[in-house]
Amino acid sequence: MDIQDARLTIVGLGLMGGSMALRLQERCRELCGVDTDPETAELAAVAGVRVRDLSSALSASDVLVLATPVRETLRLLEGFRADPPRVRLLLDLGSTKRQIVEAMESLPDHVGAIGGHPLCGKERGGFAAAEAGLFEGSLFVLTPCSRTTSEALSLAEQLVRQLGASARQMQPAQHDRLLAAASHLPYLLAASLMGAAETFGQRDPSFWDLAATGFMSTSRLAASELTMMVDVLTTNQDMLLQALARAQAELGQLRRLLSDGKERPLREFLAPLQRRRAGLAGRREATDGA
Amino acid sequence: MDIQDARLTIVGLGLMGGSMALRLQERCRELCGVDTDPETAELAAVAGVRVRDLSSALSASDVLVLATPVRETLRLLEGFRADPPRVRLLLDLGSTKRQIVEAMESLPDHVGAIGGHPLCGKERGGFAAAEAGLFEGSLFVLTPCSRTTSEALSLAEQLVRQLGASARQMQPAQHDRLLAAASHLPYLLAASLMGAAETFGQRDPSFWDLAATGFMSTSRLAASELTMMVDVLTTNQDMLLQALARAQAELGQLRRLLSDGKERPLREFLAPLQRRRAGLAGRREATDGA
Repeated sequence: MDIQDARLTIVGLGLMGGSMALRLQERCRELCGVDTDPETAELAAVAGVRVRDLSSALSASDVLVLATPVRETLRLLEGFRADPPRVRLLLDLGSTKRQIVEAMESLPDHVGAIGGHPLCGKERGGFAAAEAGLFEGSLFVLTPCSRTTSEALSLAEQLVRQLGASARQMQPAQHDRLLAAASHLPYLLAASLMGAAETFGQRDPSFWDLAATGFMSTSRLAASELTMMVDVLTTNQDMLLQALARAQAELGQLRRLLSDGKERPLREFLAPLQRRRAGLAGRREATDGA
Repeated sequence: MDIQDARLTIVGLGLMGGSMALRLQERCRELCGVDTDPETAELAAVAGVRVRDLSSALSASDVLVLATPVRETLRLLEGFRADPPRVRLLLDLGSTKRQIVEAMESLPDHVGAIGGHPLCGKERGGFAAAEAGLFEGSLFVLTPCSRTTSEALSLAEQLVRQLGASARQMQPAQHDRLLAAASHLPYLLAASLMGAAETFGQRDPSFWDLAATGFMSTSRLAASELTMMVDVLTTNQDMLLQALARAQAELGQLRRLLSDGKERPLREFLAPLQRRRAGLAGRREATDGA
């Protein structure tokens, strides 16, 4: 089966699920969305998404996408152990992969399940922020497991292509280790900056007027949707603590260099980081704005 | 004298000085730029800026803007003690203000000197990144001192208006305290993220492929021009160390909450920060891109 001939159900019509629905509804045989929040369901319906309840949607689906926060996905997968959906592809979009893939392994062995994580986003969540082009040009990690049939893998890869993204296969542990450093740690650093900012803002409210572009981009991730982030932090705790320790060591080293006040060692520490980061410029960077 | 009738000299044609030259050259009687780097001087000349050497420029200037890194500005001000420029306004654009304003206080008392700091920028420096609209809509801090004549203050305020920015008067110590938290601390956090990233990238080069939008914005400031930043760090060491201590305490608290692995306290810690940061959305945010 090709993805164009498939009937898709997307559970969760937030930023990710909503964007996927908007993108794929003209690119498959049939698409419907499921969301327990009436307001979200209404927004999606107004935007042209056919909204149904989960059980009736599942009765006529070839592809099921779980676009829910990680722990909601784990609850859904738990339910599927006794009552597995009759689909050719079961794909999730969660930001951590070890626990989800482990839960997929407990499904009956005919279920074509595979883990997925599209590396894109913006800090505003919800269907209101969804856009069909969200995935364009971004990387989409796929974490196959023993439940991944070749048909499921092929459908997942086609789906990723239809989104305008590139698929990259990876082990769940490698994904979680790398994302701890590339995404979850930046979130903690942004949150620590906001925590410090609260203190400074209380002492002198002018602080908020002076928080300009540099502050805005460094703190951006702290505005991420909270339920999603708490799920990420608690399902990747071990690897995130390791990444955090590394960043704390770097900050400790910066503190020592700064206290010493010697220009050369400070410069030697910062120069390679400056070169590396300048070399990344031009990559896509999300902003608060439009 | 009005700014439109003034002859301006801008020393340092990097991002700030270059952008100011591009913006003001049609809005004053005469403008010339000074830069000791031949390549920068050439770029500016090609873009239509009249480039001269400092002493000949100074002999026919009403307004002198020092758009040099902080410690270069301090060296220039030191030289002016014995040989003060005959200008009505001497304005600098340095990112820290205490040492500069202190140096201004040592100038002969007829010099109309005032400290300034435009709160805008992007991480790419140099004239190549300069643009006439850089200051538009941003805040421009002015730190008057006993050397600030009323004419100098008026000329500085007019200059800020011509840039499309809003002037805000502030004491140098308040500026440095607030900027330590709003700008210099975010830089250190971005640098610590890049330091940690180097470690992860060495262990697994796939790291760099997975460093997506969130990583890019949190690390953006680490690409800032190094000489400028080292000057900032070393001339605001005391206040920056205090701000850094606050952020380190926040990270320590996050580590404890994460280690405990209890959802509610983690959520209670993060929720107000999430709300506050989400409330700032829509403010201007610089990016790597165009």
